[in-house]
Amino acid sequence: MKNEPIPYKIYLEESEMPKQWYNVRADMKNKPAPLLDPSTGKPITHEALSRVFCEELARQELDDTTAYFDIPQPILDFYKMYRPSPLVRAYCLEEKLQTPAKIYYKFEGNNTSGSHKLNSAIAQAYYAKEQGLKGVTTETGAGQWGTALSMATAYLGLDCRVYMVKCSYEQKPFRREVMRTYGASVTPSPSELTQVGRQILKEHPGTTGSLGCAISEAVEDATTHEGYRYVLGSVLSQVMLHQSVIGLETKAALDKYGIKPDVIIGCAGGGSNLGGLIAPFMGEKLRGEADYQFIAVEPASCPSLTRGKYAYDYCDTGRVCPLAKMYTLGSGFIPSSSHAGGLRYHGMSSTLSQLYDDKLMEARSVEQTAVFEAAVTFARVEGILPAPESSHAIRVAIDEALKCKETGEEKTIVFGLTGTGYFDMFAYERYNNGEMSDYIPTDEELARGLNSLPNIQ
Amino acid sequence: MKNEPIPYKIYLEESEMPKQWYNVRADMKNKPAPLLDPSTGKPITHEALSRVFCEELARQELDDTTAYFDIPQPILDFYKMYRPSPLVRAYCLEEKLQTPAKIYYKFEGNNTSGSHKLNSAIAQAYYAKEQGLKGVTTETGAGQWGTALSMATAYLGLDCRVYMVKCSYEQKPFRREVMRTYGASVTPSPSELTQVGRQILKEHPGTTGSLGCAISEAVEDATTHEGYRYVLGSVLSQVMLHQSVIGLETKAALDKYGIKPDVIIGCAGGGSNLGGLIAPFMGEKLRGEADYQFIAVEPASCPSLTRGKYAYDYCDTGRVCPLAKMYTLGSGFIPSSSHAGGLRYHGMSSTLSQLYDDKLMEARSVEQTAVFEAAVTFARVEGILPAPESSHAIRVAIDEALKCKETGEEKTIVFGLTGTGYFDMFAYERYNNGEMSDYIPTDEELARGLNSLPNIQ
Repeated sequence: MKNEPIPYKIYLEESEMPKQWYNVRADMKNKPAPLLDPSTGKPITHEALSRVFCEELARQELDDTTAYFDIPQPILDFYKMYRPSPLVRAYCLEEKLQTPAKIYYKFEGNNTSGSHKLNSAIAQAYYAKEQGLKGVTTETGAGQWGTALSMATAYLGLDCRVYMVKCSYEQKPFRREVMRTYGASVTPSPSELTQVGRQILKEHPGTTGSLGCAISEAVEDATTHEGYRYVLGSVLSQVMLHQSVIGLETKAALDKYGIKPDVIIGCAGGGSNLGGLIAPFMGEKLRGEADYQFIAVEPASCPSLTRGKYAYDYCDTGRVCPLAKMYTLGSGFIPSSSHAGGLRYHGMSSTLSQLYDDKLMEARSVEQTAVFEAAVTFARVEGILPAPESSHAIRVAIDEALKCKETGEEKTIVFGLTGTGYFDMFAYERYNNGEMSDYIPTDEELARGLNSLPNIQ
Repeated sequence: MKNEPIPYKIYLEESEMPKQWYNVRADMKNKPAPLLDPSTGKPITHEALSRVFCEELARQELDDTTAYFDIPQPILDFYKMYRPSPLVRAYCLEEKLQTPAKIYYKFEGNNTSGSHKLNSAIAQAYYAKEQGLKGVTTETGAGQWGTALSMATAYLGLDCRVYMVKCSYEQKPFRREVMRTYGASVTPSPSELTQVGRQILKEHPGTTGSLGCAISEAVEDATTHEGYRYVLGSVLSQVMLHQSVIGLETKAALDKYGIKPDVIIGCAGGGSNLGGLIAPFMGEKLRGEADYQFIAVEPASCPSLTRGKYAYDYCDTGRVCPLAKMYTLGSGFIPSSSHAGGLRYHGMSSTLSQLYDDKLMEARSVEQTAVFEAAVTFARVEGILPAPESSHAIRVAIDEALKCKETGEEKTIVFGLTGTGYFDMFAYERYNNGEMSDYIPTDEELARGLNSLPNIQ
């Protein structure tokens, strides 16, 4: 432990950076339920999963007993380009709030993809390269994942084919151009390139697309072209494994100065960032070595943990991917057009779902305008303009710090700041103009989504 | 000197960070010529300058003998939010180029303003606050400076009024909204708020504005409202003083590992970033302690150093600011619509102009498509998506590294990477689509601009 004052920003030295990922499932007594093969309804095999995903990634996906995976050296080399990310003491925010709480945030936005997505993108691209593949396919909504993946594939010299939801392709040209700058081909979905795309265009001429449709096109593209596999940026256990680098760095930085957090907070869409942030801390809790309070924050407009059901469901609306047991609103649930596009997913990582069901983690839902209010407060005092997704965590971190102000508790709060909002200025504009509103789905709307659940126990 | 392998990124520790700015003018034998008062044609007094600028800033502007200025603690505290900036060894770029050269870049884009501008914005806002002012006014073109200033004023609780060139206000809504998010009022210029704005609107109804007009409006606003002063993000000696933090950090990081650069390269518009980067190295050269090659890179479309004239000129097209002796294309020169908006200035810092005239620094001009080619190469291997302005330096750094490949020289090249290109994706789109063209002004066009020079020796 360093016997020095705690700096404003803690950067690990190269020698202190994690060399292994941590797989929290290894320490869970109640393992997440297995993925099911949609064609058989039985636990999916490595062979079946390898037709869609790279072999090593399929292996990681199914392994719930190995605690540590060595990070291959070429991935460590890539990580050096933008890692370690800083762990920042939010001195200015604390002063603004006049709270006795100590607030830290792990900032993952210091790279061109603007978010933590790059941590898994480079891993998935690396294993594709190792397997001798030509390239990978994926879908993207707002474009954060597609950007991260195109950066990783550019670095490794792999082909990258991105199916981008058509309305985003047209309304968010900036991220599209970042992907193209990195050499990816970006196709508005639905497209004429795939059978499923042509079918949808025939049935719904003029449709602006959906994430579910883009997933289906990307999977079809990968499985019908020699030398290609499909990759996904969230929800999966392999993604959470790669994202554990966030939590491992955070823990190393805190340990270096003898800091023990009380509360750890993260936003949760598919769960990859939150799962990665809390992984090593949850491991300690699972092994009985330490206790922490974990809070998952989700939008009130898409409340899978707080108002969803723990059940087997399709991971994609096209129903071509394996089924997962998770907290879900049903793959038929259509989220409102929240500005936090990255959190508009109907389900939640099966690992986080199990931890939540076992009451090892809490969840809160927050409304959009309250989130942007927190975002603007944070931006003005801490300088960083946060992504709307990340700002969900800021909202609850501020709420917890204000509680400390009332009670006088000097809690140590750590939250994940997953990314920057530079490509989200239309949302900020609506907030700045006072034109933003909140939306909470009614019980009836939720019931309609849950009706789409498959009948599997 | 550290006896360790050189890390991928060198971050200074808090204790190693500069506590003073360095004023290179103090070591110059041939001082830059004094600013002239436009109303008298004589060297401007502190009193006259203080009517436009804050008193301490006017003092810094006129002081060419004090070598070091203490950085006030509140500015050091703000710097901690985003400094030190990393000095990165461009291992991947070196490998891509197969060059024996060692390439380093000082990356100033890791903050929400996306550039080095914040270094001076916080200093200027701080002195305004210290003077008990209510707020500051400024102009902005593409919006980088306005963004930086609004971040600084939000932090200090000052009012910030930005006059934004109308065409940028309409075509670049993202930066406008970043400024508004930080609490600045952003007015499209020309506006009805000032006399000069109303006059221009009357004479040229429907005009989309110009930087010269926006400066005139900002100056009028500041000088006609109690408690306001005007601030400027480049060209001035005070700005170069504040930006010396870039060079001081760079030198400290290099010294820490015993690295001596051979060539130091930066892009040059008004000159603040380049001036700041080279300041301490130039100081050594001026004092005869070391020798370095310095290269200023400017766009071929706006070539003030390489094709301009060393003469007294107006700093603004509205001719309300003091006159400076500098390399200039004439305040009447209208640059083509280059995508590197930050480099479209008719003149150059008077300090850099004198150093260039004394042959202590070289200059090169480069064309736009070659700059974007370098930008894309850099982005794909080094991850960072560079601003078009910064990419001018990348272009010449690559050119120098390729020369080393031919000669076998193992030169150490350092360049300034001033910012990120997230708000410049329209330019990248044009490049990606093969629609970008180059423009070099003819001798006749340059002569027209130089005809606008005032008749002062």
